[in-house]
Amino acid sequence: MSKVAVFRREHFNAAHRLFNPAWDNARNDEVFGKCNNPNYHGHNYELEVKLVGEPDPETGYVFDLKQLSELVSEHIIEQFDHKNLNLDTQHFINLNPTAENIVVVIYEILRKKIDSRFDLKIRLYETERNFVEYPA
Amino acid sequence: MSKVAVFRREHFNAAHRLFNPAWDNARNDEVFGKCNNPNYHGHNYELEVKLVGEPDPETGYVFDLKQLSELVSEHIIEQFDHKNLNLDTQHFINLNPTAENIVVVIYEILRKKIDSRFDLKIRLYETERNFVEYPA
Amino acid sequence: MSKVAVFRREHFNAAHRLFNPAWDNARNDEVFGKCNNPNYHGHNYELEVKLVGEPDPETGYVFDLKQLSELVSEHIIEQFDHKNLNLDTQHFINLNPTAENIVVVIYEILRKKIDSRFDLKIRLYETERNFVEYPA
Amino acid sequence: MSKVAVFRREHFNAAHRLFNPAWDNARNDEVFGKCNNPNYHGHNYELEVKLVGEPDPETGYVFDLKQLSELVSEHIIEQFDHKNLNLDTQHFINLNPTAENIVVVIYEILRKKIDSRFDLKIRLYETERNFVEYPA
Amino acid sequence: MSKVAVFRREHFNAAHRLFNPAWDNARNDEVFGKCNNPNYHGHNYELEVKLVGEPDPETGYVFDLKQLSELVSEHIIEQFDHKNLNLDTQHFINLNPTAENIVVVIYEILRKKIDSRFDLKIRLYETERNFVEYPA
Amino acid sequence: MSKVAVFRREHFNAAHRLFNPAWDNARNDEVFGKCNNPNYHGHNYELEVKLVGEPDPETGYVFDLKQLSELVSEHIIEQFDHKNLNLDTQHFINLNPTAENIVVVIYEILRKKIDSRFDLKIRLYETERNFVEYPA
Repeated sequence: MSKVAVFRREHFNAAHRLFNPAWDNARNDEVFGKCNNPNYHGHNYELEVKLVGEPDPETGYVFDLKQLSELVSEHIIEQFDHKNLNLDTQHFINLNPTAENIVVVIYEILRKKIDSRFDLKIRLYETERNFVEYPA
Repeated sequence: MSKVAVFRREHFNAAHRLFNPAWDNARNDEVFGKCNNPNYHGHNYELEVKLVGEPDPETGYVFDLKQLSELVSEHIIEQFDHKNLNLDTQHFINLNPTAENIVVVIYEILRKKIDSRFDLKIRLYETERNFVEYPA
Repeated sequence: MSKVAVFRREHFNAAHRLFNPAWDNARNDEVFGKCNNPNYHGHNYELEVKLVGEPDPETGYVFDLKQLSELVSEHIIEQFDHKNLNLDTQHFINLNPTAENIVVVIYEILRKKIDSRFDLKIRLYETERNFVEYPA
Repeated sequence: MSKVAVFRREHFNAAHRLFNPAWDNARNDEVFGKCNNPNYHGHNYELEVKLVGEPDPETGYVFDLKQLSELVSEHIIEQFDHKNLNLDTQHFINLNPTAENIVVVIYEILRKKIDSRFDLKIRLYETERNFVEYPA
Repeated sequence: MSKVAVFRREHFNAAHRLFNPAWDNARNDEVFGKCNNPNYHGHNYELEVKLVGEPDPETGYVFDLKQLSELVSEHIIEQFDHKNLNLDTQHFINLNPTAENIVVVIYEILRKKIDSRFDLKIRLYETERNFVEYPA
Repeated sequence: MSKVAVFRREHFNAAHRLFNPAWDNARNDEVFGKCNNPNYHGHNYELEVKLVGEPDPETGYVFDLKQLSELVSEHIIEQFDHKNLNLDTQHFINLNPTAENIVVVIYEILRKKIDSRFDLKIRLYETERNFVEYPA
């Protein structure tokens, strides 16, 4: 049977700061501007999870989107929602929490939780005008 | 000349019920939850039709989007809008009207009406947070 | 202290049919058109609940929006989500489930659950292009 | 001549934490839940500024929205964008940065900058589903 | 019976130029900036028509929104859609087509077509970030 | 390292007219309908620029979206915003400004300004319901 893509959209609110600890503050300000505020700023992140697979002939589902929502809630939203990404998660201790790095982290977490017969792609909106996708 | 994708977005409102008639009610409730309500529930479906082709050098159009809108209205919206997908269409008599199955049905209908020199892809939003795409 | 309005947006998906049982089918078709489909159609309803009151000086909240969300979920969403408004609720046995009548029913339910020191207004979106508000 | 309302929408991204310093942590957690994260979380705030007045017969403008945008940028966005509301502004040193308190602060700042012949109202979206308005 | 507000949203695409013919070009540029382009620019206008009245006990409608849509199409969209507001309509020969003036013109047209027992209010979006409302 | 896609969304407002100067007016009306208005009509165009590349290990950025925004502003928005596409730009003197042709023009301009190690794709919304993408 032919493959269909299914998408589930979730959201979380988080604080972050962009900087490279190997650089001095002047260079961080030059590269990251206001995003280098040492007291953090924040975003309403919108997350789109895309799975590709064959619909199950008995259910007509590629993947039950209610189960996908629960899986994303358990492994992503619980970890990131109302958190400071730099301080409250282990993922960004040595990794700058840019949208690019966050979307790769989310992909790596979910890839382990979703059967490999499904292709997986993640889109992450930091704002309505700035967003990223992985794998490209 | 190079290929350009053009998209047209349309909408319809419909009722449906998700269940597998080969299963008993307990199993249908377990798998489909509230979507198995025997009295139906409904959605505002948003439909995105994507065609890929070369712009006509005389018009600058890949495909006149007003004509695409009329074609989608005639073959999809007229059939599905303000309908009960399970009872009022012939497509879902033996097919569970999940978003995955609906998007494949819409693709199959439109594929016959659109010249094969155009690639065709359909995206269907069941809600803002749940949507599907075919072919994947 | 001055009054502030707070808004919480929720959603539910439901089926309905518009008709007047005192009329014959021809008149129902003339007035309600496709909305009179005897097999029902449906919508993704978006609900905005507005409360007006003074922020509590200790919390800075007019009303905790998480509590408001839970209250709306318990009294409205549980009753209406994934339901047939005509068949599955007691409210529309003798009342046509137009957006106007639904919004008044929702207001009457919530008005009893929310302290009278708060002004209450409800907005209900049946589609992005058709919506209603009560009290006007 | 008759009065017309004009609206300008702007946005800023900020971090904040909700808590009452007069309370112990258990009570703050009970009341503010995840919003009491001591490391902060954040939002994409959307701000709607509404002015009511008579259109100038020579320009047809109630208020030049480009000038309104610059005024809001100078007095609000510059202060709040990419900031920690608790730490980086003087407004929330002794005031909990709930949406209700933020919208009143923004109103008070802008009220002094906009001629009193214009009525002023502010709407602030903390998320798409939670928002506030002042005066009510 | 109590009053309910009903809203219908429509759209049209138009070109316009903002300027005051009594002024020289330098002053028009100073006041209207890029909006004074003598070759025109354009917008996707979104129009919200709000009627307030009592629901009819037989239909449950304040006003059939399909009929309202047809009425707005006939009297507003037909006149303004895909038009140059300055050149193709009689309304803006001696009136600058600012959003403020357009919304008043639309109100005056519709006010004559809608029974006076309904209150009428118009909101007009020139862009997502600039919009107006009349009466205020 | 793996490739990530980054997207930046910008907007501009412009007037245009669709017609083929080699055709008579009857044929232009037949093909382009209301879009052939000789006095022009207009749109709020929304532009999405997609770059694909590897995140820089020092910054975590594929491409600084603030710099991408400035680059798009300088080379696209400055040229097209508040302009008449047919009369005020050199691109559409001999090219019909359909969405298809506009998106190819924008791609060609930006392709020269963005290092070839990044894949580039442009999406252009003429309205919420009509949009195009290049390369397909």
